[in-house]
Amino acid sequence: MKLATYQDGSRDGQLVVVSRDLATAHYATGVASRLQQVLDDWSFLSPQLQDLSDALNQGRARHSFAFDPRQCLAPLPRAYQVVEGQAYPSLLQPREAGVGPALAPGSGDNFAGACDPLRCASEALGIDFGAGLAAITGDVPQGATPPQALDGVRLLVLTNSVRLRSLEAAGLAKGVGWVQSAPTLVFSPVAVTLDELGASWDKGRVDLPLHTHWNGRKVGMCDAGPEMQHHFGQLIAHLCATRAVRAGSVVGSGPVANAGTGTKGKAQWPKGYHSIAEKRAMETQLSGQASTGYLQFGDTVRIEMKGQDGLSLFGAIDQEIAPR
Amino acid sequence: MKLATYQDGSRDGQLVVVSRDLATAHYATGVASRLQQVLDDWSFLSPQLQDLSDALNQGRARHSFAFDPRQCLAPLPRAYQVVEGQAYPSLLQPREAGVGPALAPGSGDNFAGACDPLRCASEALGIDFGAGLAAITGDVPQGATPPQALDGVRLLVLTNSVRLRSLEAAGLAKGVGWVQSAPTLVFSPVAVTLDELGASWDKGRVDLPLHTHWNGRKVGMCDAGPEMQHHFGQLIAHLCATRAVRAGSVVGSGPVANAGTGTKGKAQWPKGYHSIAEKRAMETQLSGQASTGYLQFGDTVRIEMKGQDGLSLFGAIDQEIAPR
Repeated sequence: MKLATYQDGSRDGQLVVVSRDLATAHYATGVASRLQQVLDDWSFLSPQLQDLSDALNQGRARHSFAFDPRQCLAPLPRAYQVVEGQAYPSLLQPREAGVGPALAPGSGDNFAGACDPLRCASEALGIDFGAGLAAITGDVPQGATPPQALDGVRLLVLTNSVRLRSLEAAGLAKGVGWVQSAPTLVFSPVAVTLDELGASWDKGRVDLPLHTHWNGRKVGMCDAGPEMQHHFGQLIAHLCATRAVRAGSVVGSGPVANAGTGTKGKAQWPKGYHSIAEKRAMETQLSGQASTGYLQFGDTVRIEMKGQDGLSLFGAIDQEIAPR
Repeated sequence: MKLATYQDGSRDGQLVVVSRDLATAHYATGVASRLQQVLDDWSFLSPQLQDLSDALNQGRARHSFAFDPRQCLAPLPRAYQVVEGQAYPSLLQPREAGVGPALAPGSGDNFAGACDPLRCASEALGIDFGAGLAAITGDVPQGATPPQALDGVRLLVLTNSVRLRSLEAAGLAKGVGWVQSAPTLVFSPVAVTLDELGASWDKGRVDLPLHTHWNGRKVGMCDAGPEMQHHFGQLIAHLCATRAVRAGSVVGSGPVANAGTGTKGKAQWPKGYHSIAEKRAMETQLSGQASTGYLQFGDTVRIEMKGQDGLSLFGAIDQEIAPR
């Protein structure tokens, strides 16, 4: 099933069930008003949402309405835990082989909806996007193995991890991660259960290309599956090595990327990029100098993933950069 | 007023109002069941809690009962944002003068109650306590100045930031902060509004000594006030430089410490220590070698702060280290 949260003026919004084709929706009021409630009591509430989803997909839901992603908050508008990994090969911070996943905690008090304008104080901050996937978990016990941790995945979303690159060095130097340089995490309009992915869910990886458009031009089309070095079960198991992970935790992959491979004596570059910093690292490697600038006011970023049937799985993150 | 959360088998527990002397309590059911509700709607709900608090302190509350800190969850059992600063001088990571506060995000999905046993898989992990203070905020707008940010402080608590020191280097090396090495944040039994501190609340600092006992022996009695290099308004303002901070964010000071001062040709050391790592750093500085070991199973840690009247302000964090 597909779940979204509609704006209603409250912090947590109103939970809605969305049809598979993203055309119609239905308030989940009779079951639960907030997604966190459902995550807290998944085995009791999710079957009731599934019934509603089935009715909606079969055209039997009596109070359905046209689904409008512009009315969406993040499916989970705030979360008690957010961590982001670096699950894909990156020129930015090349990882040694055999090293476990690096997970950086973040702030969950205020996620952005898919079509919210991205407001920043200044273009000089080096505004960057970072297109990836995230799992939203149920309860996962301390010490869970990667396969056990995979059982704790309840929902998947697309994310845009916005970064202010000019503020990043300070956080890294202090060794404490990112606070000021990670102002916003943006979610796709809908979160989906794993069955929505069909055969594209490959034991912790999503075996589909991710598409990122910048000002209408396709800049990223990397495969999210085969090159995910640490799958979601591994990321979550890393997180719960020393403690339990509780329901509603958001575990992100970091920007999707594919490694370039050298063939026929000349480098073959990845299928585009899902963060400008990655593009700049490629440029530096090729020509010694980064030539692509960061986002400007008025720029648009669109992030979407289509299933094997060509239909949008999560709806699109579709944002414009705007001054504060 | 003083607020606590009683266990009731649910994730968020039941909000109670506690008397100033910590002797009696009263369910806040008629006003709100969860503390996050109150933080989300502070100006409407907190006056109602204040009325209940006044009645309780005057012996007029009709269904009051004896307050038992062992029945407490953390006052805020889970939070959408947790960051911890390093607000006090430390031998562990000496800071350059003039450098802004370093804030490390953490996980808010599962805080521990004041008397919960601290369960760890192994003593070899280097189990350490870290006694400090934290502010729980309301909404603070993006770009707030430190004085404006101070207006956003709703409640104060004592905290024990548990650390697994043997896992810390890996997180630092990756530059992403602490995930596995920071398994638990423990809260005092009650959270208090600033008026409970009287004259000891000094524009963002708490001008009182913090007391830490390890196995019944007082090991830390540092002043929490004068040497707090970045007060709570500064910490929160740093956090909301690039985005708004939303209600229920927990902003921690990090372990309280005082700088040692050299006098009469010999070093004068601080008033004890509030983390073992700090003690070990002192030993290393004095004799080239750390001699104090980390926590062992069966050890107890007690953290408390008393007001100028000699009464416990927050109740005591009082924990035993136990195998998983």
